[in-house]
Amino acid sequence: MIKRLLMTATKPKKGKAQDFVLKTPKGTKDWADKDMVLREAIFGTLSTLFKKHGGVTIDTPVFELREILTGKYGEDSKLIYNLEDQGGELTSLRYDLTVPFARFVACNNIASIKRYHIAKVYRRDQPAMTKGRMREFYQCDFDIAGNYDTMVPDSEILALLCDGLNGLGIQDFKVKLNHRKILDGIFQACGVKEEDVRKISSAVDKLDKSPWEVVKKEMVVEKGQPEEVADKIGEFVKHNGSIREVLEYLQSSEILKSNDSAQKGIEEMQILADYVDAFDITQYLSFDLSLARGLDYYTGLIYEAVTAASAPPENATELKAKSKDDDASAYVGVGSIAAGGRYDNLVGMFSNGKSIPCVGVSFGVERLFSIIKNRANLNNISANHTDVFVMAFGGGEGWNGFLKERMEITNKLWKAGINAEYLYKSKANIRKQFDAAEKAGAKLAVILGKEEYPQGQLRIKVLGQGEENEGELVTKDELLAAVQAKLSSDIDDISRIIKGL
Amino acid sequence: MIKRLLMTATKPKKGKAQDFVLKTPKGTKDWADKDMVLREAIFGTLSTLFKKHGGVTIDTPVFELREILTGKYGEDSKLIYNLEDQGGELTSLRYDLTVPFARFVACNNIASIKRYHIAKVYRRDQPAMTKGRMREFYQCDFDIAGNYDTMVPDSEILALLCDGLNGLGIQDFKVKLNHRKILDGIFQACGVKEEDVRKISSAVDKLDKSPWEVVKKEMVVEKGQPEEVADKIGEFVKHNGSIREVLEYLQSSEILKSNDSAQKGIEEMQILADYVDAFDITQYLSFDLSLARGLDYYTGLIYEAVTAASAPPENATELKAKSKDDDASAYVGVGSIAAGGRYDNLVGMFSNGKSIPCVGVSFGVERLFSIIKNRANLNNISANHTDVFVMAFGGGEGWNGFLKERMEITNKLWKAGINAEYLYKSKANIRKQFDAAEKAGAKLAVILGKEEYPQGQLRIKVLGQGEENEGELVTKDELLAAVQAKLSSDIDDISRIIKGL
Repeated sequence: MIKRLLMTATKPKKGKAQDFVLKTPKGTKDWADKDMVLREAIFGTLSTLFKKHGGVTIDTPVFELREILTGKYGEDSKLIYNLEDQGGELTSLRYDLTVPFARFVACNNIASIKRYHIAKVYRRDQPAMTKGRMREFYQCDFDIAGNYDTMVPDSEILALLCDGLNGLGIQDFKVKLNHRKILDGIFQACGVKEEDVRKISSAVDKLDKSPWEVVKKEMVVEKGQPEEVADKIGEFVKHNGSIREVLEYLQSSEILKSNDSAQKGIEEMQILADYVDAFDITQYLSFDLSLARGLDYYTGLIYEAVTAASAPPENATELKAKSKDDDASAYVGVGSIAAGGRYDNLVGMFSNGKSIPCVGVSFGVERLFSIIKNRANLNNISANHTDVFVMAFGGGEGWNGFLKERMEITNKLWKAGINAEYLYKSKANIRKQFDAAEKAGAKLAVILGKEEYPQGQLRIKVLGQGEENEGELVTKDELLAAVQAKLSSDIDDISRIIKGL
Repeated sequence: MIKRLLMTATKPKKGKAQDFVLKTPKGTKDWADKDMVLREAIFGTLSTLFKKHGGVTIDTPVFELREILTGKYGEDSKLIYNLEDQGGELTSLRYDLTVPFARFVACNNIASIKRYHIAKVYRRDQPAMTKGRMREFYQCDFDIAGNYDTMVPDSEILALLCDGLNGLGIQDFKVKLNHRKILDGIFQACGVKEEDVRKISSAVDKLDKSPWEVVKKEMVVEKGQPEEVADKIGEFVKHNGSIREVLEYLQSSEILKSNDSAQKGIEEMQILADYVDAFDITQYLSFDLSLARGLDYYTGLIYEAVTAASAPPENATELKAKSKDDDASAYVGVGSIAAGGRYDNLVGMFSNGKSIPCVGVSFGVERLFSIIKNRANLNNISANHTDVFVMAFGGGEGWNGFLKERMEITNKLWKAGINAEYLYKSKANIRKQFDAAEKAGAKLAVILGKEEYPQGQLRIKVLGQGEENEGELVTKDELLAAVQAKLSSDIDDISRIIKGL
């Protein structure tokens, strides 16, 4: 836990006292202890998944040339962190991993790649810690770039998304799907002018948080659409269900029949319906015409996974009204836990229009972390991985604490690849050594007794079995094998916790 | 390889063309492909090492409040990257992982911790790519904080340093040691005034790059020391050898006898000599009175590991003279590959003087990467981890390419945790499928034949054994077990490469 203390720190050079709050910047936090173990295990689970699908990983700089990010995020561009102009290039912290990926593909003239990237991104948003919205946070992205047959990579991304959430022990999720070509076709067919399509799309995007009346008002009052246009749109966006159900509805619509964009989208969704059957993930999917996704760069299929655990609490409005905190949005629920879509034109923006079609998904790892942490029992997890604690028992006349001897034995364990610690004191009493061993989460104690050790004998004691357990005497030569035998029965707790077992 | 192309990218919103160089910012780079696999393996090796010594890992934000970094880095403070003032707090990118660690310890009121941290740091230095000096680079740090007996944690850090370099296949290294208390004592005893000690120390720090005459001139001309003071210092700093040899020399010095600081340092080095014997690392150590280390915050033992591979080439001066590049420093060699020391007062700067003594080491992972990459043969390493490529063989009348069937079989392999891919085309010829399998580095092909598959049979073929190898026919039910059996003989190539085997 981070305590925020007002501290007086001394500038070493000038000897002046300086008052400042000792904390991390707003919207950022330190990760440590069991949280860190859990987060690393989540990253490990997702990396394994990404490799299973042929992914390779890349690493791009945390800041990019400012022009690279310009014009890619629509209204959200105001949330980009800029670095100070200290002479030289103008740069900004990355806002997501998708634009840097597109820049990477263009920069390196890559024709096809499946890449994953687990890294931090930065947004100068209003932080809402409790719902996992931070200014610095991790994204875990998997993207497929390349010219392939329609909906083939898209369906694999959906399979990977479902497999990933299952692998993190999340069963009760839905993946909402929609298609930008269908959505844009609906807007056009309902009478929205070409130049207004994106802004009407971002009004529809708010339907997961606001009722239809609010969104309609935004369309009519703020965005100048005739009321009958808004009403026609309202009729469409209330539909959701299985891909085939919603397709049937769309195919029955007279006004969409002459809209090329909608027909193209419908055709692609029909192909998709077949492929998701082959991947056996139909039960997780819901074709939802109200899903719009905020970002400008999507051009085809879009999706967003939500779970009961990420939904707003039933009394959200009440909680919001009660809250005196600035951060009333803390009660809205954590939102989507993974999302993505197809973006066929982004790479082209960096390569004179030579487009490489892309489709990808981003797992919201801080949100997944919150859900798993709420569910998991972390009591049996230790932040460190120490297996053996090397101790000395003795006292009385001429007792030197066996410090050098403990160093030698510990070193022998290290050389054999065994995780081992000892107390950094020349003389240490028995109680303090056991306390330190417990704090370190050690499974075994290796004990150098004042009388036993000079005769070439050490005692191995399994920890946590009570005081009366005397342990087992072994010779110096037998030590390594005996320790290894006792450790091999150990099980991998954290991976069971991640899977929700 | 990153090609730097002048690109015309189109701003999507305004339709204006914009010229800019498509590249990463100066001093930064993308990591991909085999380089990324190698770097991840180095991180894995070091993480395992850190855990072996009881380390826990933490993660701190990439930027800190600016005041946290102020006054910690001496002359190097000018290299700190600031974030733009966009309203709110003033922040800067971290310059190292040590100051954020001290801030973390103080923030959380931690009395003792062994932590490791592998993360990027930022310095607005003149980049020298070829010697591995970047503006964004990784550090791998291990630090021990807490009140312990003299030189006990220090000697463990040295053992960990030697073990770490050995584990990365580096044998021909030396760890240069010195002690700030001895060094400061020498300066005082030679007649340097208290307030000049740090600046004389940073002159001595240049002895690894410049001859004594240059350093002496800096002391006398720039830093105003009398010539006889500089000469006395020159006499001391030319000494190096085993800890006990150099201790003997120091103890024979008349002018150090009355210097408390030097005597305290000498006493500590005597204790250290004993402990490094216990850890069996004496052969790697060289007590070198010319080692000074640039950073202000060190207070005790300091060290720096160098290797023949990191030394300047013999014709460095010649190369430098010839070079037309701005970056003549590219020829100086990669410098130290790991370094660190004791800093007992840094945490106290953040906690009203309540000090927590610390000692640590930082591995220069980009430099280690260069050395290992120069040595290693990466031909047999694949950037992805694909084991199985699922293919369809067929053609002629009524051939549909078995796309859905390939999806189903691949999905079955994924569910069993097997890394598998297939070609994202509804119909694909045999040649293209084998090419894709080879590119993916797959070990096995699972083949759905036009006649065989409808009869419930698949063919498993070990790749890279020539065309005439027909593979083995199995039933759908036998598939998983057969694939698993053929994969289990696989060996872990990258870890052998890291170890230099």
